[in-house]
Amino acid sequence: MILTVTLNTALDVTYGVPELVPHASHRVSDMSERPGGKGLNVARVLSALGHETAVTGFAGGSTGAVLRELLAGLPSRDANTKAENGATPAAAPITDALVTVAGNTRRTIAVVDRATGDTTQLNEPGPLVNADEWTALLGRYEELLTGADAVALCGSLPPGIHVGAYAELVRLARTAGVPVLLDTSGEPLRRGIAARPDLIKPNADELARLTGSREPLRATRDARRRGAHGVVASLGPDGMLAVTPDGVWQASPPAKVLGNPTGAGDSAVAGLLSGLVEGLSWPDRLRRAVALSTATVLSPTAGDFDRAAYEELLPRVGIEEHSTAA
Amino acid sequence: MILTVTLNTALDVTYGVPELVPHASHRVSDMSERPGGKGLNVARVLSALGHETAVTGFAGGSTGAVLRELLAGLPSRDANTKAENGATPAAAPITDALVTVAGNTRRTIAVVDRATGDTTQLNEPGPLVNADEWTALLGRYEELLTGADAVALCGSLPPGIHVGAYAELVRLARTAGVPVLLDTSGEPLRRGIAARPDLIKPNADELARLTGSREPLRATRDARRRGAHGVVASLGPDGMLAVTPDGVWQASPPAKVLGNPTGAGDSAVAGLLSGLVEGLSWPDRLRRAVALSTATVLSPTAGDFDRAAYEELLPRVGIEEHSTAA
Repeated sequence: MILTVTLNTALDVTYGVPELVPHASHRVSDMSERPGGKGLNVARVLSALGHETAVTGFAGGSTGAVLRELLAGLPSRDANTKAENGATPAAAPITDALVTVAGNTRRTIAVVDRATGDTTQLNEPGPLVNADEWTALLGRYEELLTGADAVALCGSLPPGIHVGAYAELVRLARTAGVPVLLDTSGEPLRRGIAARPDLIKPNADELARLTGSREPLRATRDARRRGAHGVVASLGPDGMLAVTPDGVWQASPPAKVLGNPTGAGDSAVAGLLSGLVEGLSWPDRLRRAVALSTATVLSPTAGDFDRAAYEELLPRVGIEEHSTAA
Repeated sequence: MILTVTLNTALDVTYGVPELVPHASHRVSDMSERPGGKGLNVARVLSALGHETAVTGFAGGSTGAVLRELLAGLPSRDANTKAENGATPAAAPITDALVTVAGNTRRTIAVVDRATGDTTQLNEPGPLVNADEWTALLGRYEELLTGADAVALCGSLPPGIHVGAYAELVRLARTAGVPVLLDTSGEPLRRGIAARPDLIKPNADELARLTGSREPLRATRDARRRGAHGVVASLGPDGMLAVTPDGVWQASPPAKVLGNPTGAGDSAVAGLLSGLVEGLSWPDRLRRAVALSTATVLSPTAGDFDRAAYEELLPRVGIEEHSTAA
């Protein structure tokens, strides 16, 4: 089982409007809701790849109840139908191991202008999490680690959670001997790295904020010196740069693609983590991560990946090994 | 008891953002939720004026549950505290007589740009209401009419409800001998008027759509000829024009005010309806409606009215009787 932790889960709401005009009134032409927050997105992709997953983090209030109801409906019937046809691996179950909190889970609202495809995002703050709820999460997390092959710690911190929370979770994973990937930003990332996670997956902006450098190789090496055993920097259309104890690789998508990058980073995390658990080589993990994240950009639904595109892209991802030592 | 009917109730959500930038990502800096839909707003104002009210219409799903929970908390403790001090009339109870439906009550999202105060509105479509649910509403409505001194039929129709729904509700009220005010727009207003409601309260745009005329006196008279016994046209900063069997009056606020007009029309409906039930003269009803709606524009919270402003404005509303016959 792969465990994902999402401390600041969200109900992701998408509103389509014919055209977004500031200070006007809009009738929403179409809407959808789905369980969100980075770790939940990672779990959905892992499930589609056939990996059993458990998700923990916090959920509460009426929005939390809707989120858990939608989560219970995953993996979708569509995914299973495809699996029965033998065309794709069966989607594996996602176990809801969320900790109930008194506060109301946040919503994120993506307003999509159907004329241009542009998205305007409104993110509610998360619920205030108290000390007892954090203690409950720690207990649940330690239990889950005993059955986990790997763990991903994902996204922002809700109000009330101390800035060293991810560092604490990294240490507990290392004590339990479970490989841990940290995907967050800002001060929680800085502190988390000092606790020596196996892998971090910053994008170029997060790396620059962490290290002060916009030169990918220099910044990635700096991030390793700060404590991360391996660093996979996601460089958008330029693919990924992996600096690891085993070597340095650059992975590039076969072509630039146009689409919605929402969730591409989460798909990359799922690719890296599933590859780790399956014992793939670094080049194969990177091929999977780049193909999944490109196929996510290409998907008509934000955050989903286009499976046909993924399978077509996978053998065409370019891998270049750097001769320089990590 | 005054009854208000809101077929398309809503959970009104307000998001404050530092500045709304299309196609950017925003952290919501403050948020609030309250029960909405025009009839619920009318009931809140009636309650603050000391009138017992019952609200019916449809509510369902997780959003409907949140709406009803918030409704159960009305009138607010603040209102009661003031009443104990003797400064203002005690807020009267609001009875939840909503009919439960399978669909999910809609949300409306008001995104307030805290830099400019401008509001961008996103309105979800309502839940699809089926024939059994409509029949249940009719039964509940007829029961409630037996104890009602007046009824207000307010707002848009949710999907699934026939366009003549308000006409049907107007006829039932007339059969029961309960004075009925209709506040809707478009085809439901046109059909509702033909069923001969006691009063309609269109704004200038609604009147123009109904009659084709932008000349208030002509359009208001035309609306009466179509079936409404009385017409009170709300003309924004120009106040209100009442064309009734008893005469024609123009009511004007003492000064132009700046603020948020959200809910001003609902406050006017509450003013007219409470004045009717209390047996006030037309000039006094209009004074109350204009003072309440101006005090709503002045309130810092959209849809609430500023009681001190209301009491100060009330004696200063200008009333002019037209010598022409209605």
